Amino acid sequence: MATLLLHLADFDEASWARGFSAALPGHRVVLRGDDYDPAAIDYIFIWKPKVNAFDGLVNLKAVLSLGAGVDALLRHPRLPEGVPIVRFMDADLTQRMSDYVLANVLMHQRLFTRFKRDQQARRWVQLYPAAAWECSVGIMGLGQLGQDAVRHLKVFGYKLRGWSRTPKSIEGVETFAGEAQFDAFLGGTDILVNLLPLTPQTQGILNYDIFSKLRRGGIDGEGPVLINAARGGHQKEADIVRALGDGTLKAASLDVFEVEPLAKDSPLWALDNCYITPHIAAASSEKTGVAYFSKVILDHEAGKPLPNVVDVKRGY
Amino acid sequence: MATLLLHLADFDEASWARGFSAALPGHRVVLRGDDYDPAAIDYIFIWKPKVNAFDGLVNLKAVLSLGAGVDALLRHPRLPEGVPIVRFMDADLTQRMSDYVLANVLMHQRLFTRFKRDQQARRWVQLYPAAAWECSVGIMGLGQLGQDAVRHLKVFGYKLRGWSRTPKSIEGVETFAGEAQFDAFLGGTDILVNLLPLTPQTQGILNYDIFSKLRRGGIDGEGPVLINAARGGHQKEADIVRALGDGTLKAASLDVFEVEPLAKDSPLWALDNCYITPHIAAASSEKTGVAYFSKVILDHEAGKPLPNVVDVKRGY
Repeated sequence: MATLLLHLADFDEASWARGFSAALPGHRVVLRGDDYDPAAIDYIFIWKPKVNAFDGLVNLKAVLSLGAGVDALLRHPRLPEGVPIVRFMDADLTQRMSDYVLANVLMHQRLFTRFKRDQQARRWVQLYPAAAWECSVGIMGLGQLGQDAVRHLKVFGYKLRGWSRTPKSIEGVETFAGEAQFDAFLGGTDILVNLLPLTPQTQGILNYDIFSKLRRGGIDGEGPVLINAARGGHQKEADIVRALGDGTLKAASLDVFEVEPLAKDSPLWALDNCYITPHIAAASSEKTGVAYFSKVILDHEAGKPLPNVVDVKRGY
Repeated sequence: MATLLLHLADFDEASWARGFSAALPGHRVVLRGDDYDPAAIDYIFIWKPKVNAFDGLVNLKAVLSLGAGVDALLRHPRLPEGVPIVRFMDADLTQRMSDYVLANVLMHQRLFTRFKRDQQARRWVQLYPAAAWECSVGIMGLGQLGQDAVRHLKVFGYKLRGWSRTPKSIEGVETFAGEAQFDAFLGGTDILVNLLPLTPQTQGILNYDIFSKLRRGGIDGEGPVLINAARGGHQKEADIVRALGDGTLKAASLDVFEVEPLAKDSPLWALDNCYITPHIAAASSEKTGVAYFSKVILDHEAGKPLPNVVDVKRGY
């Protein structure tokens, strides 16, 4: 029977511990403050690990990451080498992300900002939004989240294009890969959706230069839109402010920020074509998190391979 | 070869005429101002018909309605009796309506109003929206538009319920019919979507009494939402203002109004939990309208039955 250590900064660890104890009868679940032998820990389940999080865990079988993005974890100065990292990825988290992406794609396709401004001015102007199939959605990142967004977007008939590090083939999606095809991908995109993992290569990728390469006039001549549901490190916020102000971007939906919480004095708050949510696009819930990682542990103890193991060199 | 009369108030009739002439070679297309013999008219294609629209059209084979809703047409005092009325209904119009419905359902499920208010106050509160499957969408009207909305909503996993005049069975939807089951339908609905035809029976159906019967607390305890994409005649706007003010409705998305354009002094404009669009949810486009009704005429001339014929007694 294995021992699981919970290390969940900012979360109700005791509540998660009750969940895991119920789901893993016979196993031991310990908290950071408990009295335990570090060498007896088989699995550590983490969120925002402190600098000493892994100290003494010399018999660790796996690091279990509550987040789907592991960029912060991979920068941890004392991350044990050679121990597999399992990241969270399940139907619940994936569906929540697709809810967020589709809510924002549809909102912008339906010219939400235009009608909001008309309403504020008590102005009745019958502008008919382009149909979904007249509108091109470009997805950066074609992993599990990107592919699930594609599945939802297809039902509406959007023109779909996708960009990823390595070439991928997805039915109904015009795909582009690598730096060489990035500009071609951008040039046909009306609504840009970022779902990339954050790596040294994708840091700051959402900048003024790429915004200016998006298709002009695609959605009723109102210019392109940015949706970022991945990581704040992908975006240059000063560039977004500039692009939203000068029309290079018509609108943006941002769930993530360079520094979170977003600073009180950020100019983004006040832009009426910027839609801010506080990093809640696709949260891991306690219920599904417990279910997912309990199964990971039970399967692994039974000799099955770990799922969704991070490729440390690749960065996700 | 048939003769088609165009009677399209508020539209560019000459442009539509060019479209029909190109699509119906050998047929005659005339405008209201042209010199023609009323008895020679086989088909009239109408939008907002004037009182004399049908005068002298004694050999009319069909009335072709640009609108999917024919409530105004059926109230026309000189509508010829016994002449079949064909209403517009095609994939383009249906998809546009589903775009509108889904954009608004998703927006409300994702707590758009809450986050908008937080943004205005520069407030970072990580409230996690309910997943789609924790949220119940109730659709009033299960015709072509209602069923297409269902097809889109299913992809997200929403709990679906539907209400119609006569009992219908739709896979994955809990269905209710008639007045007897209306309260039960409302009682389990978090997001109410109206796609009913406007008839004497459905006039004013969206009123304070039914808002107060919707499920309380379904979407993160934030109360129910109304989306009306059908007709202004369905809604009591004074009741909507009251319900949005006292929390009986958390929010509303309205594309239609009792009087259009919406009066400058309507209190709806100023409510920040009311989302107004100027009757543009699902417009008929010239391109698809010409394609649809040209085919109707050619098929009918070839002896095939007319599609989407209105049941005048039923009212749609």
